Amino acid sequence: MARLNDNYLKLKAGYLFPEIGRRVREFAAAHPGAPIIRLGIGDVTLPLVPKVLEAFHAGIDDLARAETFHGYGPEQGYEWLIKAIIDKAYGPLGVELKPHEVFISDGSKCDTANILDIFDLSCKVAICDPVYPVYNDTNVMVGRSGEADSRGYYQGLVYMPCTEENNFTPAFPTEKVDLIYLCYPNNPTGTVASRAQLTKWVDYALDNQAVILFDAAYEAFITEPDIPHSIFEIPGARKCAIEFRSFSKTAGFTGVRCGLTVVPDELAATTAGGDQVLLNKLWNRRQCTKFNGVSYPVQRAAAAVYSEEGWAQVKEVIDYYLGNARVIRQNLESAGIRCFGGVNAPYIWLKTPDGMGSWDFFDKLLVECNVVGTPGSGFGPSGEGYFRLSAFGSRENVQEATERIRRKWGR
Amino acid sequence: MARLNDNYLKLKAGYLFPEIGRRVREFAAAHPGAPIIRLGIGDVTLPLVPKVLEAFHAGIDDLARAETFHGYGPEQGYEWLIKAIIDKAYGPLGVELKPHEVFISDGSKCDTANILDIFDLSCKVAICDPVYPVYNDTNVMVGRSGEADSRGYYQGLVYMPCTEENNFTPAFPTEKVDLIYLCYPNNPTGTVASRAQLTKWVDYALDNQAVILFDAAYEAFITEPDIPHSIFEIPGARKCAIEFRSFSKTAGFTGVRCGLTVVPDELAATTAGGDQVLLNKLWNRRQCTKFNGVSYPVQRAAAAVYSEEGWAQVKEVIDYYLGNARVIRQNLESAGIRCFGGVNAPYIWLKTPDGMGSWDFFDKLLVECNVVGTPGSGFGPSGEGYFRLSAFGSRENVQEATERIRRKWGR
Repeated sequence: MARLNDNYLKLKAGYLFPEIGRRVREFAAAHPGAPIIRLGIGDVTLPLVPKVLEAFHAGIDDLARAETFHGYGPEQGYEWLIKAIIDKAYGPLGVELKPHEVFISDGSKCDTANILDIFDLSCKVAICDPVYPVYNDTNVMVGRSGEADSRGYYQGLVYMPCTEENNFTPAFPTEKVDLIYLCYPNNPTGTVASRAQLTKWVDYALDNQAVILFDAAYEAFITEPDIPHSIFEIPGARKCAIEFRSFSKTAGFTGVRCGLTVVPDELAATTAGGDQVLLNKLWNRRQCTKFNGVSYPVQRAAAAVYSEEGWAQVKEVIDYYLGNARVIRQNLESAGIRCFGGVNAPYIWLKTPDGMGSWDFFDKLLVECNVVGTPGSGFGPSGEGYFRLSAFGSRENVQEATERIRRKWGR
Repeated sequence: MARLNDNYLKLKAGYLFPEIGRRVREFAAAHPGAPIIRLGIGDVTLPLVPKVLEAFHAGIDDLARAETFHGYGPEQGYEWLIKAIIDKAYGPLGVELKPHEVFISDGSKCDTANILDIFDLSCKVAICDPVYPVYNDTNVMVGRSGEADSRGYYQGLVYMPCTEENNFTPAFPTEKVDLIYLCYPNNPTGTVASRAQLTKWVDYALDNQAVILFDAAYEAFITEPDIPHSIFEIPGARKCAIEFRSFSKTAGFTGVRCGLTVVPDELAATTAGGDQVLLNKLWNRRQCTKFNGVSYPVQRAAAAVYSEEGWAQVKEVIDYYLGNARVIRQNLESAGIRCFGGVNAPYIWLKTPDGMGSWDFFDKLLVECNVVGTPGSGFGPSGEGYFRLSAFGSRENVQEATERIRRKWGR
């Protein structure tokens, strides 16, 4: 009989968000009419902006006539979208990219998962803890780990704890690693890396000949000056980093699906024989063989984000979510709850009151305040005792939810 | 330095369609104004049908208001699309599927590539020759093969030649294999498998505990009665087959991107320890972790294909392409050229005149008739001496192109 990929069986059965869904459904069934407010999953709630809608419709109109019909597009994405990204998203940062260094995809989740295809199984991988589960799980699935231990750490992966004690700044791995995942602004902690901190990471990667996999899905939420929006703002990064970006949170594309990956020309890895090969060529081959490009109208919609009007509209939505984040932080802090993030990110990472466990707090919050959040321990062992609230709700809901929390735990 | 996936370097540099593009560009540059007709790549040319366009626009309208906004959808696809597929695409065939057995994706290319994720590297793989290059290349990339030999066969993969001599019906592998790719109606040969032939394949797979990866991307082009549209029409297939389908050729979605994969509940594979595990669960985990669902408006557009009006409109387009295929076959056969396919598929597979090599014929056809096709050898060594013409052009172009061929080679 065909053999399956045993590595999948190492994954723990209970996935975070389904387990949350189960508990919320049970509670709602037992308490019909309970005014539940959901600040758990990081999904946007506001509609697409007018310029994006207009371009999206126009893209479909093109498909209505043979003269303007678009069939298979370039696997790498249309050049007009790539040019808009280079000019409007990277240009203002002083980052120069060549068109073939940018690959349009159907989202960062896919790209951060698929990028592993081009690396050898022997690569040692470092991830933060807590972390976006995809980095961890995809490495387990491809066979880079042993079983999970009782705390939830998979043997063979290198975990970098991020807690209040180290100010959510991971220490450099003490053992040699080849691939380092960094996500800034961070999911789930909402914290950022300063220019000095990112410079240290780039220097570390160059010294250790490692590749940084930099997830910048939340860069549009950065409000403080001098926080880098791209790893490529750091000198030397073109030799050691791949960057992932997404339209999901930037422009409300979670249900529309578009992202991008930048693989610079200078980035190389070695063969078994010690030869250096450019990773740009490998990723291109991967995409050409296993991917067929992003929906044409979706790319038209994405390009409209970079029009002057489009960007202003998108920025307004982001500011609304950031306003929510401010409300959450203020209300919780005034209740004496310690909060992190929420300034340059749509996530607030809070220390649970009274030293409660993450899931205990989840249950209490659900039952006593009818508010849904995400237990920090779901993102990794070092998330225990923490909790994530998302700022993607409506202002009223965010206000009301945190008011309930303040009434319950405020001192 | 990070080690790259060496298997990528085994792939031959020259990919088929870029090489065709290069030769056509060079010719066009040297002969400006030459009336080139392209029947090479299998890309649709007619616009989306009205019902699909209407639903596509309506999907975007939903994203314009918070009340009807859709963010992250189910990774597996929306239930209303899955239900439409089960009822309208599979129901009439007498095939009953459960909703969780159907996974919506952004296309068959991705799925036929990604499905390898859930199988162990030790699985022995059988593919037809000639073949859709993705089956071959993805297995090379993941490390299931050695280097290619001088003919283009990769060591370790099992090739099943399909030629005029065996009526394009591959013989069963003589060695034990675990995964068998079958594509019917076939790309590139345009031939089909009868119910009796598919029954033999299912029996073979059951006897040998192999899994059939059945690519039915062209099933909508079947015109002859009693040719199976789905592998699941064959008794026993639910225990040994995965099926891939696509909206690309069915509804002109090559630039829109939507497909689906069916993994039945009864299909299992074994762990290293010999336990049986259901592949449906593994594919679900793969999709949930590495994929984030298909664009919501695209799924709305896809569902419209199954409305009564939508299906009638789509069928009209397919009939137009099939009419093209008929014209190509008739004109070439009247010129004394031996043709295969084109009756239940949008591809005509022809024997090159005068025993010419595939690339020789390509060059002659380009230079002397200004017609672009695809050299059969590009699909595998057994395609040498054959040539593929696609029926996706306009009637006028197809008429004119084959007229030119008849003038040149007709006897």
